[in-house]
Amino acid sequence: MAFPPVDEQMKVLRRGVEDIVPEDELADKIRESRETEAPLSVKLGCDPSRPDLHLGHTVVLRKLRQFQDLGHRAILIVGDFTGMIGDPSGRSETRPQLTLEETRRNGQTYYEQATKILDPDKTEILYNSEWLDEMSFSDVIELAAQHTVARMLEREDFNQRYEAGRPISIHEFLYPLAQAQDSVHIEADVELGGTDQRFNLLLARRIQEAHDQDPQVCMMLPLLEGTDGTRKMSKSLDNAIGITEAPEDMYGKTMSVPDELIYRYVELVTDVPTEQLPKVKGFAESNPRAAKAQLARRIVAMYHGEDAAEEAEEHFEQTVVEGDVPDEIPEHAPDTENGEVGLLNLMRHADLTDSNSEGRRLIEQGAVSIDGKRVTDTGRYINVDEEAPFVLQVGKRRYARILPETREAET
Amino acid sequence: MAFPPVDEQMKVLRRGVEDIVPEDELADKIRESRETEAPLSVKLGCDPSRPDLHLGHTVVLRKLRQFQDLGHRAILIVGDFTGMIGDPSGRSETRPQLTLEETRRNGQTYYEQATKILDPDKTEILYNSEWLDEMSFSDVIELAAQHTVARMLEREDFNQRYEAGRPISIHEFLYPLAQAQDSVHIEADVELGGTDQRFNLLLARRIQEAHDQDPQVCMMLPLLEGTDGTRKMSKSLDNAIGITEAPEDMYGKTMSVPDELIYRYVELVTDVPTEQLPKVKGFAESNPRAAKAQLARRIVAMYHGEDAAEEAEEHFEQTVVEGDVPDEIPEHAPDTENGEVGLLNLMRHADLTDSNSEGRRLIEQGAVSIDGKRVTDTGRYINVDEEAPFVLQVGKRRYARILPETREAET
Repeated sequence: MAFPPVDEQMKVLRRGVEDIVPEDELADKIRESRETEAPLSVKLGCDPSRPDLHLGHTVVLRKLRQFQDLGHRAILIVGDFTGMIGDPSGRSETRPQLTLEETRRNGQTYYEQATKILDPDKTEILYNSEWLDEMSFSDVIELAAQHTVARMLEREDFNQRYEAGRPISIHEFLYPLAQAQDSVHIEADVELGGTDQRFNLLLARRIQEAHDQDPQVCMMLPLLEGTDGTRKMSKSLDNAIGITEAPEDMYGKTMSVPDELIYRYVELVTDVPTEQLPKVKGFAESNPRAAKAQLARRIVAMYHGEDAAEEAEEHFEQTVVEGDVPDEIPEHAPDTENGEVGLLNLMRHADLTDSNSEGRRLIEQGAVSIDGKRVTDTGRYINVDEEAPFVLQVGKRRYARILPETREAET
Repeated sequence: MAFPPVDEQMKVLRRGVEDIVPEDELADKIRESRETEAPLSVKLGCDPSRPDLHLGHTVVLRKLRQFQDLGHRAILIVGDFTGMIGDPSGRSETRPQLTLEETRRNGQTYYEQATKILDPDKTEILYNSEWLDEMSFSDVIELAAQHTVARMLEREDFNQRYEAGRPISIHEFLYPLAQAQDSVHIEADVELGGTDQRFNLLLARRIQEAHDQDPQVCMMLPLLEGTDGTRKMSKSLDNAIGITEAPEDMYGKTMSVPDELIYRYVELVTDVPTEQLPKVKGFAESNPRAAKAQLARRIVAMYHGEDAAEEAEEHFEQTVVEGDVPDEIPEHAPDTENGEVGLLNLMRHADLTDSNSEGRRLIEQGAVSIDGKRVTDTGRYINVDEEAPFVLQVGKRRYARILPETREAET
């Protein structure tokens, strides 16, 4: 395929990016790639200890996809080498030691989730233990000779810990060097990462140069704030929207994002064309409620399809927006023989449906809920003695308050 | 063999030592060694890039010999692993990269010189590349995890460089860890080193503990000042007395050591019994000239035997002490045919000897010199036209000033 013109590629690639170092080298590399008809190798490192992807991860993955759409190659490097070592100093609880099987399984999970965004045909997945395990002590010394202690201590987290007198084990200096070695191994042209990876990405340039390679261009993407609107999205902070979550959860969580972040989410995690972004910005300011609903529907559609997005929206409207059930709704105390009644019959007797087959269809459509919780089992039996009173809702507008059987007996 | 009592061993081992860390552990180890009849493994690291030993090196070697005499094992570790890497950052000119052959040859030279002091039957020589070359990147990470950056930066030279903003390559942090790994590998009970090795020696204790080994006792020996009396003895500072140097040079250089250091040299590099040291101290203060001559003779005797020591002293007396040849000495202008004359004939004609055989014997004894330079060739011919005038000396007291032949012709 022919690569698009340099300017066009640069325009796409600049979107939502925090920093490109150095930007002119990226243009040069793209120019050369067009001239030689050789795609660029774009590297992304993956942590095999956290295989569940959320929208925060998709910021870089989407950028990688853009590279692919422009004709370039994505190379996912699974950091299984460090994953399998864990933290030998025993200081870090967040770095568990993984077995080979775990890293491979997690790598596969990562790949499967990442290819919801990436083009699998242009995606390679590599495990860095393949080459790092081959390195001897002398190789490590040669690698470590390429960098100084002082420069390593400039890395923000190291610097803070050093200044605060908190211990930094020497092996922690070796991890960034190992990552840099990955770039050397695959001869990366570009590496993507979050802004928190800036130091490591730039370090790889120096190590590549020491190996007489053209240094990679480093592209830093912003860290997406989670649903709390303040902290970086992270599963452990419980502010993440996972890309394999159920449509309703995805939709509902997106709707809980603060209004100020609507535009940022649209820019960073959706495929709304760049030229439409200014319009989106205006819309998000003038009508945040509608803009956010559009965003939520768009996100769900990306991972579950248009139909699921529509249903999720409908469900949200029913259960959350219209979830404040009016006080004055019909009450119904069912007749049962032993306290139990089938849901299909219950809906019909409460005048919410005309037939059991209508009830079945509505349940299958996800339009039936009990106290705001969607029901999925069409054969469900309800123990009225135990579960009532509750509000049974069918579609957007039909409600009934189901009372316990005993109550009728008492009146 | 039975090991001497603990107190007796400790008394010998404490001589001339700067520090033993921790001293009580050494006593414990010696006690256990006696009880189990197992000798201690005493480690000394050797730099394969500098195989020429001087008296400064003998300070630790003599201590090692004392351990051997007490029944323990000496293990020389040749640091060929780092020797063969050189300095990959290219910053250090003092760390040349050696080939395997060079390190083996240097190691052998080291061994041959060291066994002038050590008992070869109780000396093992090992090359640390044997185990360090086997280490993988993960092994290095595990090793490096045992120590922190802050503690490494406490090492004096690192600290000074860091504070002064001079670069420290990260691989330099790995060398002390590699040395520590040597102690783990041989399960060292004791390690000897100069006081400048204190940090590295103590580091090995921590790494051994991380490997569930009894940590080694570290014994720091003073750094011997060179003949200039101020700086550490070092070949490159031209203040060293090499242990393979010729007897006269060794003697003469020792005589050039400042008087204040006589006692220190006696204590650290000779086998004068410990109980005699106080007497030596008094002697060095009351009669430094004689004490120093005794020291010089003793040192030469250690490396070249008693006879050579005596001759060296005689030579020194002749050429240096009595080197101020009196002005009033007999003059002699030889008869020659073509300007040349045999030395044996010249001595006889100048009335310095009675026969050529006496002359030959005196030359062989090293008792003949020309302008203070010892003559060794009994068949030497002298071109009087070119070499005269000069002072020919035979034994301690016989001199003749040899004049050019032409001069006689002119009178």
